Amino acid sequence: MERLLTPSYIARCAVLAMALEVSGTPKPGNIDRDHDYADTKYEDFLAAAISVFPVMEKACHNHGIGELILEASEESTAWQPGGNTHFGAYILLFPLIKAACANPSGLQDEAIQAVRETTVEDAVDFYKAFGKVQVKMKGSEDLDVSDASSLDDIRNRGLTLFDIMEISSKNDMVAREWTNGFARSFKAAELISERRDGGTLNDAIVLTYLDLLADEPDTFVAKKYDMSRALYVQGLAIDVIERRMTLNELSNRLYREKINPGSTADIVIAGIFIALLRGMRV
Amino acid sequence: MERLLTPSYIARCAVLAMALEVSGTPKPGNIDRDHDYADTKYEDFLAAAISVFPVMEKACHNHGIGELILEASEESTAWQPGGNTHFGAYILLFPLIKAACANPSGLQDEAIQAVRETTVEDAVDFYKAFGKVQVKMKGSEDLDVSDASSLDDIRNRGLTLFDIMEISSKNDMVAREWTNGFARSFKAAELISERRDGGTLNDAIVLTYLDLLADEPDTFVAKKYDMSRALYVQGLAIDVIERRMTLNELSNRLYREKINPGSTADIVIAGIFIALLRGMRV
Repeated sequence: MERLLTPSYIARCAVLAMALEVSGTPKPGNIDRDHDYADTKYEDFLAAAISVFPVMEKACHNHGIGELILEASEESTAWQPGGNTHFGAYILLFPLIKAACANPSGLQDEAIQAVRETTVEDAVDFYKAFGKVQVKMKGSEDLDVSDASSLDDIRNRGLTLFDIMEISSKNDMVAREWTNGFARSFKAAELISERRDGGTLNDAIVLTYLDLLADEPDTFVAKKYDMSRALYVQGLAIDVIERRMTLNELSNRLYREKINPGSTADIVIAGIFIALLRGMRV
Repeated sequence: MERLLTPSYIARCAVLAMALEVSGTPKPGNIDRDHDYADTKYEDFLAAAISVFPVMEKACHNHGIGELILEASEESTAWQPGGNTHFGAYILLFPLIKAACANPSGLQDEAIQAVRETTVEDAVDFYKAFGKVQVKMKGSEDLDVSDASSLDDIRNRGLTLFDIMEISSKNDMVAREWTNGFARSFKAAELISERRDGGTLNDAIVLTYLDLLADEPDTFVAKKYDMSRALYVQGLAIDVIERRMTLNELSNRLYREKINPGSTADIVIAGIFIALLRGMRV
C-alpha cells in the first residue's frame, strides 16, 4: 500500500473492518446483512462501527487502552439501541491501532508491547466499560464488576489490564490474543488476504470465519451456554468444511438455535483490519 | 437530540446516511446489501462512505464546496474500485454539512445560502472532480470537462458553481435541489422520520425511495438512457404504490433491465442525513 498510515487512515480501516465483518454473509449464527436478532439489528452494527471513528483515531495519541474501550463503549451505545456490538473487537483493535500508529512495519511486536504496557488504571476503566455493556467473561468471576468494591480490589491487588486478560485467557479467546501474541488475528489476516486474491471479499470473510469456527470452540458460545454447545458448533463447522453439510444448512441451524459465535467474529474483525492495513482492497 | 452537533458528529451522521441508504433493500434497480452490479458492489459503497469521513468533517472549516467534492471524489476512488459511488450525494451533503455546522436550527436556510455563496473556483474544482468520475450531466454539454479549455471558459464567463447547477437544474434533479431550496431532500427527511416512528428503518428508507421514484422521473436514468425510460420507471413505481405490482417484482425488473435510479438514491441520502441530524435513531 502506497498510503501513508495516518491516524485518520488507520481509524477508517478499523471502522471499515467492523462494517465489512458484519456485512459478510452468511456468517452462521451471527448478525449479518441478511440476519438480525430480535434486540439487535444489522443497522445497529453499522451505526456502532461508524460512531467510534473519533475514538479509533484518538488511539494514536497516547490514551490508555482501558480509557479507549470505555469511551468507545459509551459512544457506540449512544448511537444505537443494540447494546454491546463490538466490545470484544475493541479489545483487539485498540492495541493493533496503537501498534499501527507507532510502527506499522512491526505491527505484531508493537501490539504485543502495547498490551504489556497496560496499567491498573486501564483495568479499572475496562471494568467500568464492562459493567456498562454487561459482558460475561469467565475466569474473572472473583472480580464482580457490578460491585464497586471490585474496582478497589483491582487497585489494591495492583492488577493491570494485561493481568486481567491473562486471568481470562483460559476461557476467553479474545483475551487469549493478548497473551498469545495476537496469533489468531494475524492468521485470520493471512487467510483473508490470500482468499481475496482469488475470490470475492465476502467469500474471504465468510470462509475464514468458518475456518476459525472449525479450529477452536467459540468462547462466547461457551460462556453464554456451555462448552458442550461450543464444541457442537465447532463440530458442525468441520462438517461444512468436510462437505457433510452445506454452509446454508449450518447457517439456518445456528440462527434457529440462536447460537452466535461472537468471539470468532471479533477475531475476524481484527484479521480484516490487519489485512486492510497491509493493502488489501475491497 | 441532546447531542452537541460537533463537526465530528455531523460527519459521522453523513457517513452513516450513506451507509444506511445503500443498505436499504430492496431498493429497486440500485445497489443495495443484496444487489451488486458487475463493476460496483455493495462493499465498494461501504468503503466509499467510510473513506470520506475526514472530508465531511473538513466541510465545517471554511472550505469551498467545489474543493470538498473534488477531495471526496479522490479519496473515495482511492479506497474502492467501484468508481463514482456518491458524486451526486456530495453535491447535496456538503451544503447541508456546512449548514449544520453554521446553524443547525436553520438548516434549510443555511444550505440555501451556502450554495448561493459558491464561487468560480468552486465551479472549476467541481469540473475537475466531474472529469475524474466521468459523470454525465446534461444541460451543460457546452462545458466539456474533458477539454481543458472548458476550465478557462468557466473562468472567462465567471460562472460560479451555483450558476452551473442552475444551468443543469432543468435536467438534473440533484442540481435542482440547489435552486429549489433542497425541497425534496427535506421532504424525504420528513417521510423517513415519520415512517421510522412506526416501523423499521429499512422500510422507512425503501418506501421513501419508492415515493420519490413515483413522484418524479429519475434524471440519472433519463441521462443514461432517455426520458421515456425514466417515465417508465416512474410509472412502475406508481404501480407498486397503487398495488398493481409488488415491490419485489419492480425490483427484479429494474435489476434485469439494469436501470438504476441513482439520483433518487442521492436525494434519499440527503433525507436520511437530515433526519439523523434531527435526532432519528437507527
